[in-house]
Formats: sequence, C-alpha cells, structure tokens
Amino acid sequence: MNVKKKRALSLLTGALMGLGMASSAYAQTSLEDVMKDRGLTQKDLLAAAKTYTPSGGRDEYLAFSSGGQSGHVIVYGVPSMRILKYIGVFTPEPWQGYGFDDESKAVLAQGRIDGKDIKFGDTHHPAFSETKGEYNGRYLFINDKANPRIAVIDLHDFETKQIVVNPFFRSAHGGAFVTPNTEYVMDAAQYAVPFGDDFVPLEEFNEKYRGGLTYWKFNDKVGRLEPENSFTFEMPPYSQDLSDAGKGPSEGWGFTNSFCSERYVGGIERGRPPFEAGCSQKDTDFMHVTNWKKAAELVAAGKVKKVNGSYLITMEQAVKEGIFFLIPEPKSPHGVDVSPDGTHIIVSGKLDSHAWVYSWEKIKKAIEAKKFEGKDPYGVPIIAMKDALHTQVQVGLGPLHTQYDAKECVVYTSIYVDSMVTKWNYCEGKVLDQLHIHYNVGHLVAMEGDSASPDGKYLIALNKLAIDRFNPVGPLHPQNHQLIDISGDKMQLLYDMPLPLGEPHYVVAIKADKLKPVVRYKTGWNSRADKKSEFKTRAGREKTVRDGNKVDVYGTLIRSHITPEIIEVEEGDTVSLHFTNLERAQDETHGFAMYGQNVNLSIEPGKTVSATFKAEKAGVYPYYCTEFCSALHLEMQGYLLVKPKGYKAKAGKIAEGTKYTKADYDKQVKTNVDTQAVIDSVVAFITSHNYKDFSTVVDLVTDATDQLGFAAEAKKKSEGFAAKGDYQNATLWAGQHWQYQVKTADLGLRAKTHLEENGAKKVK
Amino acid sequence: MNVKKKRALSLLTGALMGLGMASSAYAQTSLEDVMKDRGLTQKDLLAAAKTYTPSGGRDEYLAFSSGGQSGHVIVYGVPSMRILKYIGVFTPEPWQGYGFDDESKAVLAQGRIDGKDIKFGDTHHPAFSETKGEYNGRYLFINDKANPRIAVIDLHDFETKQIVVNPFFRSAHGGAFVTPNTEYVMDAAQYAVPFGDDFVPLEEFNEKYRGGLTYWKFNDKVGRLEPENSFTFEMPPYSQDLSDAGKGPSEGWGFTNSFCSERYVGGIERGRPPFEAGCSQKDTDFMHVTNWKKAAELVAAGKVKKVNGSYLITMEQAVKEGIFFLIPEPKSPHGVDVSPDGTHIIVSGKLDSHAWVYSWEKIKKAIEAKKFEGKDPYGVPIIAMKDALHTQVQVGLGPLHTQYDAKECVVYTSIYVDSMVTKWNYCEGKVLDQLHIHYNVGHLVAMEGDSASPDGKYLIALNKLAIDRFNPVGPLHPQNHQLIDISGDKMQLLYDMPLPLGEPHYVVAIKADKLKPVVRYKTGWNSRADKKSEFKTRAGREKTVRDGNKVDVYGTLIRSHITPEIIEVEEGDTVSLHFTNLERAQDETHGFAMYGQNVNLSIEPGKTVSATFKAEKAGVYPYYCTEFCSALHLEMQGYLLVKPKGYKAKAGKIAEGTKYTKADYDKQVKTNVDTQAVIDSVVAFITSHNYKDFSTVVDLVTDATDQLGFAAEAKKKSEGFAAKGDYQNATLWAGQHWQYQVKTADLGLRAKTHLEENGAKKVK
Repeated sequence: MNVKKKRALSLLTGALMGLGMASSAYAQTSLEDVMKDRGLTQKDLLAAAKTYTPSGGRDEYLAFSSGGQSGHVIVYGVPSMRILKYIGVFTPEPWQGYGFDDESKAVLAQGRIDGKDIKFGDTHHPAFSETKGEYNGRYLFINDKANPRIAVIDLHDFETKQIVVNPFFRSAHGGAFVTPNTEYVMDAAQYAVPFGDDFVPLEEFNEKYRGGLTYWKFNDKVGRLEPENSFTFEMPPYSQDLSDAGKGPSEGWGFTNSFCSERYVGGIERGRPPFEAGCSQKDTDFMHVTNWKKAAELVAAGKVKKVNGSYLITMEQAVKEGIFFLIPEPKSPHGVDVSPDGTHIIVSGKLDSHAWVYSWEKIKKAIEAKKFEGKDPYGVPIIAMKDALHTQVQVGLGPLHTQYDAKECVVYTSIYVDSMVTKWNYCEGKVLDQLHIHYNVGHLVAMEGDSASPDGKYLIALNKLAIDRFNPVGPLHPQNHQLIDISGDKMQLLYDMPLPLGEPHYVVAIKADKLKPVVRYKTGWNSRADKKSEFKTRAGREKTVRDGNKVDVYGTLIRSHITPEIIEVEEGDTVSLHFTNLERAQDETHGFAMYGQNVNLSIEPGKTVSATFKAEKAGVYPYYCTEFCSALHLEMQGYLLVKPKGYKAKAGKIAEGTKYTKADYDKQVKTNVDTQAVIDSVVAFITSHNYKDFSTVVDLVTDATDQLGFAAEAKKKSEGFAAKGDYQNATLWAGQHWQYQVKTADLGLRAKTHLEENGAKKVK
Repeated sequence: MNVKKKRALSLLTGALMGLGMASSAYAQTSLEDVMKDRGLTQKDLLAAAKTYTPSGGRDEYLAFSSGGQSGHVIVYGVPSMRILKYIGVFTPEPWQGYGFDDESKAVLAQGRIDGKDIKFGDTHHPAFSETKGEYNGRYLFINDKANPRIAVIDLHDFETKQIVVNPFFRSAHGGAFVTPNTEYVMDAAQYAVPFGDDFVPLEEFNEKYRGGLTYWKFNDKVGRLEPENSFTFEMPPYSQDLSDAGKGPSEGWGFTNSFCSERYVGGIERGRPPFEAGCSQKDTDFMHVTNWKKAAELVAAGKVKKVNGSYLITMEQAVKEGIFFLIPEPKSPHGVDVSPDGTHIIVSGKLDSHAWVYSWEKIKKAIEAKKFEGKDPYGVPIIAMKDALHTQVQVGLGPLHTQYDAKECVVYTSIYVDSMVTKWNYCEGKVLDQLHIHYNVGHLVAMEGDSASPDGKYLIALNKLAIDRFNPVGPLHPQNHQLIDISGDKMQLLYDMPLPLGEPHYVVAIKADKLKPVVRYKTGWNSRADKKSEFKTRAGREKTVRDGNKVDVYGTLIRSHITPEIIEVEEGDTVSLHFTNLERAQDETHGFAMYGQNVNLSIEPGKTVSATFKAEKAGVYPYYCTEFCSALHLEMQGYLLVKPKGYKAKAGKIAEGTKYTKADYDKQVKTNVDTQAVIDSVVAFITSHNYKDFSTVVDLVTDATDQLGFAAEAKKKSEGFAAKGDYQNATLWAGQHWQYQVKTADLGLRAKTHLEENGAKKVK
C-alpha cells in the first residue's frame, strides 16, 4: 500500500503540472456581458476600478474605527474597504486570546471599576499619536464612554497595552484627542456627576454635579499613559462632549464643546419633560477653551492639588489663572475641529443648520484683552460670539462633524437630518457641493484628516442607519461606511461597506506606509508588558514544576506538536500553563484550547502566554492547537489528566494501539529517502535562482531549513532505536522524520511557486 | 438669536438645493487613468466588475462561516465579499447585548460545563436546515469543538436560540451536518475520552477511551434540538472527524471519517514520538458508516438504553444490529462528502495525494451480502477498500475537502500542501483544472454546495495563511477567503477577502432570496425564547415595582428618551431593568449602557430585554442609549441613584438650571408653527406622488406619522401649562413638541428624497 506515498512523490516532482492550463484564455466572458448581467453602469465600473484591490495588493490608507459598544477597534483598508482586524480593547475576545491569557487579563484588570471586571466598553473616538501635529504611526488611543477609560494600543503589534480609569468621571464620551506632540491625551466627561464616590441627590445638581476634561500625560518613550502626571479641569455640569487640540498658533490650547448647558435634569416618568426637551432649549451651548501648557506648568510648579490621588484644577483656580474660558456655540453640537494650520475652529450644532467658524486670532485677542461679555454661573469668563466668530455657513439640517481637505479652506461637514455631506469653503463661507448618503451620517473621516496636513483623496461617511443598503440580516442592522472620492470638484460615492460587528462612532485614517508592524516577537516575549517573559521556554527545556498544590507547566508549540502532550495534576491543584510559540515563520500562530476550563490562547510566533486555572474536578481534559497550522494540525493535541486526590497509578504502561516491525521501518525509511530526493530537487531549483532577491522566499527558506533541522534530529533518534532493534520507536521516529520533511516540502513548494510567479532569474 | 431656526426652515423648504450640482459631469477621471494609476490589468477590471456591488445592491448568496475560536458565526455576501454580520453564539458579544441581557445569558447558561460558564467556543462547521436535501433557509447549526456543544441559530432574526452540551464527549470537531429533512444533526467526537465523568489513566486508552457520533434530534416545529430524543453511537477511539449524511439512495445513512486509527498516545515530553508521528503511520484510517434510520427505530422501539440520561448505542449493539461499519480511507483525511445525488462519497487524506471516490451502490451491496474483510479490534466489520471504491484520482499534495459543482460529476478539492484548488471529474476520474491560492487552503465552499442541487457559480477557498496578501496588521494575521469564479471551464480568482476576527474553518452558502429575516419584533418580544416577554411594557405604562430589596423597573425606549429617566434604589438592592423598544421603524435599535454595572443592552424594535444586577455601592450611575438613534441621541440619558441605606431625602426639588418666560414660550411656539408649515409642504409633496408604490416610503410615512402623533401630545401638554401660566413647563414641552417635529421632518425629507431619486410620479 505504499503506492500512495509514491504517488505523492510523483506529484512533488511533477509539481503544479496542471497550472499551465489555467493561465491561458482568461476572458471567457466579456466585460460588457458582466456589466449587463449585474446591472452595472459606467459610473459603477469606474467606482469598481477605484476600489477593487487585486490579490496581494495593498491599500493606500488604513482606517482605525471605534467599535462602539463592541468594545473593539476595527482596522480596515482604504480604498478597498476590506476589514483587516478587530483589536480587542475593552471586551475579552477569544480569537486573540484577549482576556483569556494571564498577560492580557492583567491589562483588562487595569480597567476595573470599583474592583469589578468590566466586560465591555463603548469605544468612541480613536486618535493616533502625533509628532508636530502629524500622525507618527506609533500608538492609537481610544476611550470607553460607558466606563470612563482610555486604552493605549501599540501599532507595532496592534495590541492593547494599557487601560486607565478616569479618577473623577462616570462617563467619558469626549476622548481621545491628542496634543500635537502627544504630550497629552484629552478626555472629556459627558454626563455630570458628583466627583468622588459619594451619592449626591439630583436636587443638588447645579451645586455639586460637575463635568470636566482630563489631560492624560503620555510617556512616549515607554508608550504608556501616566495617571500620576495627568490633570483634570473641573468644569460646570454642561455635558462636555468632543475636543480638539490647538496647533500652530493655537498650540498649547484645547477646545471642547458641550451640550445641555441648560443644566436640565429630566424625569419623564414623573411628568417632567424629558432630557431631550430641556437639553435643547437654549439657542447656544458653550465651547470650552483650556490652556493645557499653562496648566502643565502649574502642575509642575506644585500649584495644583491632588484629589483622590489625581491633580484636579478647580474652576476657581482655572479662572484665577486665566486658563479656562467659554464661548457660545451652536446648540447641541458634536464636533469641534481645529483647522490644520491651527487658525480656525469649526463647530456645528445638530439643531442648527449652520457650521460656525471661529477665528483663533480673535479668540486670542479677546483673551489677551480680557474682553468678556460676562461670566457663567460658575464664574467662568464668556467670550462674546462676535468677538470669536469668523463666519457662519448654512450647510444643511443637522450638521455634525467637519473634516479638512488637503485643498486650502475646503472642508466636509456631515449633515445628519438631511443625510448628506456638504463640501464648503470655510474661508470664503460658501457651499461647494453636496452629496446624499444613506442614511443619517454621524462622523466623517478624511485621510489623515485630523493631522496638520490632511491628504484629502477619500472621505468616509459613517452612517448610523443602513436600512435597505444590504441583504437583510435580521432586526439588528450593520452600520454603513460609505467611501467617497473627494479628489475632484464633485464628491463621488464609491462604495458601501457594512460594519458587521459594532457601532462605530469615529474613525481616523493613516497613510499605510507610516505603519511598520512586526510579524513576529522576540522569542519568549510577553507582548502585553513589552518584555521577555519570565515564563519563556526554549525547545528541549520544557518542564513541569510543582510547588505544593501549584503546578507550573513551561511548554512550547511548534508544527505540529505541543510539549508536553500529557500533563498530570491532582484534583484541587492550581495549574499555570506557560506556552512559548517556537515558530519564527510569519503567520505561524498556534492556538491552545482546553475542554471545560476556559483556557483559550492565541500564541503568535515568539510569544509566551500563560493560563491559570483551578483543576477542580478529576477527569480527562483534551487540549489542542486551535489554529490550522499545518497538515497535521488536528494531531497537535494532548491530554490534561486530573487525578483524584491520592490516586495511585497501577503498574503498566501505555499499550500501543498499533505495532510496527522492521518491514514497517524499512518502508518508512524508503519513503523518507525518496522524499528527501524531492526536497533536494526543489532546493536545487531555488538555489539556482536569484531567490535572495525575494524576501518572501528568504523567509520560507529559513523556515524550511529549520524544519529540516528538526528532521535530522528525528532521523537520528529513529536510527538509534533501529540499531537497538526497537522497531516500534524506530518506525515512529522515522514517521516523525517524514512529518518534518512534508513541512519542508510545503515551504519549498511555496517558495518555488513564488519564484516562478514573480519572474525569478537563473543565476550562473 | 432665533435667526438660526429661521435658517433651518429656509433650508428645509429649499431642501437639497445643492444636489442639482452633483448629478452632472461625473466622470472627471477616465477609467483608463484610474487603471493606470492603480496598476490594474484588464483581468483585474473584469474581476472588479464581477464583485463590485453598488450602493443598495444585493448579493446573490449569503455565506455563513464559522469563526473558529472567536465563537461567532460570520455572515457575508457573495460575490461582494462584504461581511454583513457577526452572530454571537458561544462567546458573549456586547454590540448585540449577547451574554449581557438576562434572556441571552439564559441561552449561554445552557452551554455550561460542570456548572461553569464557558466564555468562548471554537466554532467549526455550520450547517443549514434542509428539506429534501435542499437548504430551506430556516435554521443554522454550529458546533463548538473545544467544549462539545451545538448551537441553533434562527435565520428569521439571526439570533442564537439554543445551546446543547454533548452528554458523552469532551471535544466535538465533527458537527454540524444534517440529515436530508433535518431529522437529526450529526456531531462526532474528536479526541477520545472515557465516557462519563471518571478519570481513567491513559494506560487504559484502548479499553476505556471512546470516540462517538451523536445524532441530535431536531424539532423543526419549534426550532429546537431535543436532547431527550437524541442518540449517540459509541465508537472506537479513532478520532472521529467530519461527517456527511446520505441522500437519495444513501438516505438513512451517515458517513464519518477519522484519523489516528493507530490509537497512538503521544508523550514527547517523556521521550515518546509525538502524536503527529504516531497518528500518521498507517496508510489508511477508517470511514465510519452508520444507519441512523434504523438506529432511530431501535430508539423508538425502546431497545436502546440510556446512559447518564442519554441514549447510547454501544458498539456491541450497533454491530449486532448491523448499523455500523468501517471502510479504509486515505490517511489523516478531513472531509467526507456525499455527492448531491447520494451515489458517491469522496474522501481525501491530507497525507495522500489522491482523492478517493466511493460508490454507495458497492458499499450497500457489501453490507447486504455481509461481505467483510474482517473486523477491527472492537468487532466492527470492515468492508474491503476494493469492495467500496469507485476510483482514486491524483489531485495534489495535501487534498482536504471537496465541493460539488452544478455540472454533473464536476468537483473541486482543496489542496493544502500545494496551496491550490483542483477541479476534477469524479465519474471519469480526471483532473480538469488547477488554480493556485494564497496560502494553505482548508475547506472550500461552493454555492449551495452541501445541498442536493449545488448551484456552482462561485467557489470560496478558505485559506489558513494570509502572509503577504494584505497590509500588515501585526503578528496575528487575518484569514483569507478567496473568491473564485467557477462558471466557466477555467477557474478564475476574483477577490481576496480578509477575515478580521476569528479563524473560520467551514462555510456554507445559501441563495440569498431563501432568507426572509424580519426587521422588527412583535412589540414586547423575548427574542431568545420566541414569545411575548413577561416583562413587556407599553408607552405610558412604565413603572417601578419594589418587593423587599428586589426592584423591577419596567421601562421603554423611543427616540430620544428612556423612561424612566431617573431610577432610585437603595444600596444592596437587586435591580432588574426591563426595557421595551417602542419603535416600529426598521433599524431603529436602541442601546442601553450603565456605568460600572456591566449593563449593556441592544434592544431592536419591538424587543424586550432585562438586565439584573446588584446595586452594591451608593452613588450616581449615569446611563444612556448607546445607539446613535436620532439627532438628540446624546440627550437620551438618565441616572440611577443608589442611595445609602436609610438615606432620608431633604426637602426641596430639582432647581432648574435655566428659567423660561412667556417670551421664550412664544418664540418656541412660533418656531413650531413654522416647522409645521415645512412638514406640511413635505407631506404635500409626498401625497401628491405615487408614494404607496414605494414600500420604503410607506414605512417612513408610518414612522413620521407616529412621531407627529407624539408631537400632538407634547403640544397639548405645552398649551395646558401655558394656560396655567407655567411658562417653564410650557416652554419645555413646546421644545419637546419641536423635537418630535424635527424627527418627523427627518423622516419626511428622507421619503421625499427617495421619491425624487426613484422616479416617483405625480398622481392626479
């Protein structure tokens, strides 16, 4: 029956014989036929050409979207609009092992509220780290509105590294926005609460409930926020909303809008008009202007007191120091957007039809001249609208958020009620173009749109309703992000992209080549702490250590086995599994799941992760690699045996299910020799070409060489057993030798194909 | 300052004035320019035309993919390859409120292992419910490999309704596969374990460890599996893998492949060759053939005993009754695929280069003639390969899974090691075409490929490695599903689709028009139990009920307020919130999140959900609607006040932050009158056209009429207060009146635009 192995070999040697056939006579149907069949117009075809990205192609931009109450960050490519990754941030996510391994559990534990694990987040506004107002591609920050937290994602591996909890707020819609050199991350409260842990009745809302704005200090060197060096502006209970940091002439200042400056407290259940009525009664709310540079100096000078361990700049102090002002803004706004050059600020109120353009020069003059129209009930100086405003432009009903184009003075504003995008000129105050979208747009994102030098090119409308845009999938609809070409005078709708999980609020998009993520970790790496893991293990050093009823297993994973394959513990033991992925090959992630114990790990090449659980019940617990990592992935398995307390093993050893003889051994050896000949021929092909010019092939060759190294070890063992006449073990190790050869051949063939498909040349 | 309202009105009346501009002069850049810029070939353009789906377009097929260890099911459209929905199945998912509301927690609780909540699943093989072998579009089943469970998803709302735990297994890779009329759902074990809860040492592996195959009884009328009427075949410890049910002539039979029939137990940590070596030594494994019809009759006749409350057909009984046979199959297979007409079965072994085609007629003959080549160590009769085989075809190195075309005898097999798809003819046994894919393909899916009448058209390769296909996103790569056009003689690669979350294993694809999901629930619906909720509430009937220290809140949500807006409880109370979404409009989902309590709900139109928590700590807990449901979404808020035990409220009531006078009231009334005039003009436009021919518009008009109804109520209240001289409340209610008008206008404008864009005609 060895005929099959022989056939395998013949296929290897004659590899890919069929492919010649496939390359010819491609266009069986004409483009016109396809367009007719699918009802596509010329305009559709143009949009298709502008978005379609062939296999292996790259997107020009990567968009990072909040996931809303999914608690994730969503990464997608522009213009292909293909979603590349969901990053677990505030919500455990098992594919990534996030919230399952001990290391990431420690990150989530930083976000506990009152000692309680919080199992979701309401992510809203992602922001890139910046250098001189430009995205530097190093970090992403994102807030949780429901529980006032900010997370730090490292863009070198797309993992969440840190979560901080706001010391004062109990909601935080208004994060994250960064200062031009990522000195601080801005995070505003939303719903006013009494600062501190106390219960305060709503009767004392005006006196004791407060809003605020936290400036989180960021340490760029270590990539972490520093709560101990952060400070918060105490603010009136005005529902502070979004923020933006000044740039250029306005650098050092921050701008934060608000709604419900009426300070209305609803109670429809007791006959009162609801919040929505009382919070939208006044014609204007307040833009909050803060001077963070001066605030930081006060903190540095020891002039700011700590409350509950955190710096709190009281309203009284802020007013006294001249670092906090209010300016009327259109009511119920959502978005305060500083122009790339820092000279203007645009605010839109959802219940106004105008975008308001403020002049920083005017604001600054008013502040310097101490020209105020009065003070609010909390003593905060109010700059008159006329002393701050550049112009008001009628842009549509329900204007919301503005993004800046690369073209001077050109901006795009989302229009919620009218379901459209308005393109307009904020210098001259005139509308240039309008485009319908589907439906009820929230925020917009233009490429590098929040940076000091926006790229324009594409605009994405984050539509809150999808309704009839896609095939129906039940009462809960996807969101709809619509890609718009803004390179010409007229906006052109290119693509509707459903968001299948989460309810995004805000997106930031970065030039893809600014990101340089790694594909593997240093061996034995704790990725969450960014350091060598104390639990790392090397091949051959795997061990199990018992200390009382605590058992530590130091194991490894490599195609296609887990070491150890049998773990024995006793009922009641606390077990910590520590696994290192020994692979160096790109994309060779191994997973690890175990029955009944909530153990589920994702272990990327080089990573070391741990899982701790209590073996509460005697029994047999299979475990296995969850990632389809090789042809023998299903055989990458093992057993945890939880023995009853005081269990005494009977004499005897594992009986082999199948016995092997010298004939079996010889047969396997023959196969291995033949397979090696095939590998040699593939190697000869590769080395006879300029393969070193192809980094993909170099990586494959490195990986293949590793596998062949393992093969040599297995061969040696096999021969050793054969010499002793132990054909059982000799045959099995010879089989293992063959397994490594198959892996080598897999890689070699992939390398050969890559060379053939990419025009490699023969070398002399 | 009422100028803004006036401008809003002028915009409403002159609505969409700018849009005329946008419709002309579209093609600013030519197709050729775009292709050149983006480096697209003619072949790329053709692929773009075959996949691009314009805004509002529909996909022809919906693919349902497992999410692997993400624990979800992923739904995407074909050919657009846009992901439409992630359905939470075994893993809590907050966007859907899955695992957060009491109702869905109850579903997840059905899947507990040893009383423990399991927080993930390793979903593998989805399967549609069938009628006469055809997908009927009603239900989807999916397994969890890590913890042996099967879930039922109802396709009328895309929600998970039931989870059942296998009574014998401790892993279950081999589900779900359905019999032709969904009588049963097949679910095979993977890693052998001792049945029952006992610890059994590995020394007794051959004697006491067992594999198996469960036939879960499905009750089509209520859409639930019936554990009490299900039965399991006890099987040798051979690592049973995938299954398929017979059809046509083979109906009544099931086929299950296996690997490691060597019954090898590894132990690399103790010097033994690893599982991968010992489990791939024999040239063949066993296909398991079971007769479920006869087994069901035995169960019905009371001839099968229950073990731990579940029917278990022992090997001895199965052999005696002639309902269980083995046939050699290529080693380490993954996939056993019955032809649409039920006459052939194809199995591929990943370590063989051949696909093996079995003839059901031959197998049946051998069974009827009791012609066996022997028995396995457990007494199960073995049918000789030659007595079962139709042909063997060399398809490539590492063949894995086969899908059937609409064309007779044409199939597609994934080739893992060679990274390709082979198209071949299984009747004549010849290869027709081969196509490279990127990289290391696992399963394939053809449209309706597992049904009795496959559609062909498209094939999707589920590639396990993405490596260099997409922009890099860190060490953990997306998966890559490659769409292939199989309508012609040659396969044509159309599209690379990254999977951003999860590691899919298997996909099934159904004709989209077979699905008829609802867009709203009956009002007050418990969607998980498919019945009216006992906690449903109607508008105006909201209430809070205290019973000892248990507080039940019966509330409602509608644009843009939550009733109640203030909830008062005492420290230590157990609070149950029950919310009904009063909306009838499509896509008008409301969310509900609360600070610090892990309360996070998704409440689609009509749904009633509950959240129960203990108010452990006195304080102020803001809550809000998480879905951006209207312009005043941010104002859809409230406060939970947890009062210290024994707290006595001081006299006094909420002081208004802003006071309103008769002048404010008059101003608001004027605005409302003007807004009403605008609404009337929009209504006049709509009713003067054949709007009833547009279902979208009819829905919008219904919704707008509802909102206007609320407006009338608010107006009445406002006038009532004004008559009493209470201008505070009169103004606020007048404001609320305007809020409803704005919502009405939003809907009216959307309806008007829809009519204009879709060629509505004037009616006489």
